[in-house]
Amino acid sequence: MREVAIIGTGMVHFGELWSQPLRQIWAEAARAALTDAGVDTVDSITIGCMSSGLFTGQEHLASLLTDELGMAGVPASRIESACASGGLALRAGFAEIAAGLADVVLVTGVEKMTDVDGAAATYALGTAADQEWEGFHGITFPGLYAMMARVHMQRYGTTIEQLAQVAVKNHANGLKNPNAQYHLKVTLETVLGSTLVADPLHLLDCSPITDGAAALVLTTVERARELAPGRPVVRITGSGSATDAIALANRADLAELRAVKLSGERAFAMAGRSAQDLDVVEVHDCFTIAEIMATEALGLFEPGQGGPAVEQGLTALDGKIPVNPSGGLKSKGHPVGATGVAQVVEIVSQLRGDSGDRQVQGARIGLAQNMGGSGGSSVVHIMEVE
Amino acid sequence: MREVAIIGTGMVHFGELWSQPLRQIWAEAARAALTDAGVDTVDSITIGCMSSGLFTGQEHLASLLTDELGMAGVPASRIESACASGGLALRAGFAEIAAGLADVVLVTGVEKMTDVDGAAATYALGTAADQEWEGFHGITFPGLYAMMARVHMQRYGTTIEQLAQVAVKNHANGLKNPNAQYHLKVTLETVLGSTLVADPLHLLDCSPITDGAAALVLTTVERARELAPGRPVVRITGSGSATDAIALANRADLAELRAVKLSGERAFAMAGRSAQDLDVVEVHDCFTIAEIMATEALGLFEPGQGGPAVEQGLTALDGKIPVNPSGGLKSKGHPVGATGVAQVVEIVSQLRGDSGDRQVQGARIGLAQNMGGSGGSSVVHIMEVE
Repeated sequence: MREVAIIGTGMVHFGELWSQPLRQIWAEAARAALTDAGVDTVDSITIGCMSSGLFTGQEHLASLLTDELGMAGVPASRIESACASGGLALRAGFAEIAAGLADVVLVTGVEKMTDVDGAAATYALGTAADQEWEGFHGITFPGLYAMMARVHMQRYGTTIEQLAQVAVKNHANGLKNPNAQYHLKVTLETVLGSTLVADPLHLLDCSPITDGAAALVLTTVERARELAPGRPVVRITGSGSATDAIALANRADLAELRAVKLSGERAFAMAGRSAQDLDVVEVHDCFTIAEIMATEALGLFEPGQGGPAVEQGLTALDGKIPVNPSGGLKSKGHPVGATGVAQVVEIVSQLRGDSGDRQVQGARIGLAQNMGGSGGSSVVHIMEVE
Repeated sequence: MREVAIIGTGMVHFGELWSQPLRQIWAEAARAALTDAGVDTVDSITIGCMSSGLFTGQEHLASLLTDELGMAGVPASRIESACASGGLALRAGFAEIAAGLADVVLVTGVEKMTDVDGAAATYALGTAADQEWEGFHGITFPGLYAMMARVHMQRYGTTIEQLAQVAVKNHANGLKNPNAQYHLKVTLETVLGSTLVADPLHLLDCSPITDGAAALVLTTVERARELAPGRPVVRITGSGSATDAIALANRADLAELRAVKLSGERAFAMAGRSAQDLDVVEVHDCFTIAEIMATEALGLFEPGQGGPAVEQGLTALDGKIPVNPSGGLKSKGHPVGATGVAQVVEIVSQLRGDSGDRQVQGARIGLAQNMGGSGGSSVVHIMEVE
């Protein structure tokens, strides 16, 4: 298997981008990544996108977007696994280079969510759940995560204040990220005083609806060294993917994200690393409870210790293991198909030492964890700088 | 790069499968392929599907289907490129084994198209075109292919009778395929007498709306030999993928399918083969003109000779180079995400000598070509039996 490096990153300023169609947002991120990498041709393009069909009435992005970039002809494919689409697009690009099918791959993620109204967006997001057994009976994602939160609270004594602290931390980080959708200071009182969406989750426990795109350029480690001698080379040393039952009713344990655990274990095994080796982490905080459960599933903390950890500041920028320095989905925004790629944009920035006010000092090993639905799929990548 | 073999195939009887949900159809095909391969665990699952979101209100098939098969935990991803989704799901599985990320991969394709009415299905299929520049202005796929047909007829003198002969041939082949949606004898007069959908294309020049699923099991050539000593090993020797402008207005030449040409050239180069080496071919005959143009783009015939070739019987079961022995999309049916996988099911059956009444005698090298939209993407695989 050939070794793979990330040599370019790009993303747009996440937010409500009403004046730009999907193809423009995507091309802006793609061009930024190509410019950063210093390449103008690629052998293949992968596109993470959850539901351009329902959000914008457009499938077949492989053809649409390759053409938009002036690269018609280049092999391309779109990969979907709900909100884990971006992470799996990275894994697909990684596989192509590792196999020798391509030498340079443009890995991208995109979602344009605000072209439809709130009800239609909620329906589209609901297609990540088991529609026949969950969605069609009325439950939406805040309700699904609220049920997991309830079990976690009962099992481990996790508190609503601990959930709220995730939002406080991530919004504090997002204030330092120029590409974040929200730049607002959030306090414990703001979170707990916001509308209760699905008990125990308040409005500020939930990630927003966002338009956005992000991109990476991958190549072999050997070629990365040739292209930019002297520049730090960020290698992908581990890639792990896993699924779980899509419906909560079929899960063995609602207090554990099994797909996250499995995908983390697989990525650690491939990299020859453990959670203790990590310097910086991005996890999939679509809801505050998701961040707590993900940090436990990845082994950053023992089961039940994710809540106390955030309360004690262990996951803050200056904590023992900084989690979501980008602001996470919570503050940076959550354009679902783009999220998994944007997480890796952040990790690469941290490993290169380019993260300015939110830089985690001395970061050399980072991890990104991207999740689909209520945890029905998860993909983890571990990256290391030389 | 590790060498890859196909060791199992499965598909359901294509048709209007009203009584079965998507997950059941898919699992039936998947189980058939696993049984054929003689394996009960896999390392990864890929799923080709064009638009389960618009057709059934369900995305996140990676989680839904892995669970349905009792394999929750296994890495999975869904790949989409309109009607080329199945072929790209095969390419993704091929890459995983070639790279060493997996030893056994279940490659699948599925589409459930009849849960919505005709207008909704036409809208969903329309998302494979450039919606902002084509679909939203009213054109649908018969119209797009009719324009290509008109240019082809003017440039090369291709006739409506030659188009109709594609339908006659493929329905004749489909009569011999127990899994085909349609078992009906079609004559030149029947085709030319059927409703004119978009001049020059009649109803019987168009492939139908279909529910269906198909599956393959892939492993390394080495492992294939171990698992079934003495059984013929079908190797994938070439994989080529390409895109073209999604909108016809942006194409260099409406009489040429450039993505098919490029994907074919790439697959031939990888396999070290040419069109003259092929014994049997499945191409993407979503419309009769598409088969003619695909056979030209692949180099089976010179540009403009695809029409005369079918008229002279060169592509018939007993012709010089049999095309679509399965009955093609035209007679076997076209569950869009499943089609690319079902084409390969047919090629493997032919190379194993298992095709009964429609067996191409002595077939040792086969090719499958799968296309998205009006030719905006294409993927080609070449298979050889030892």
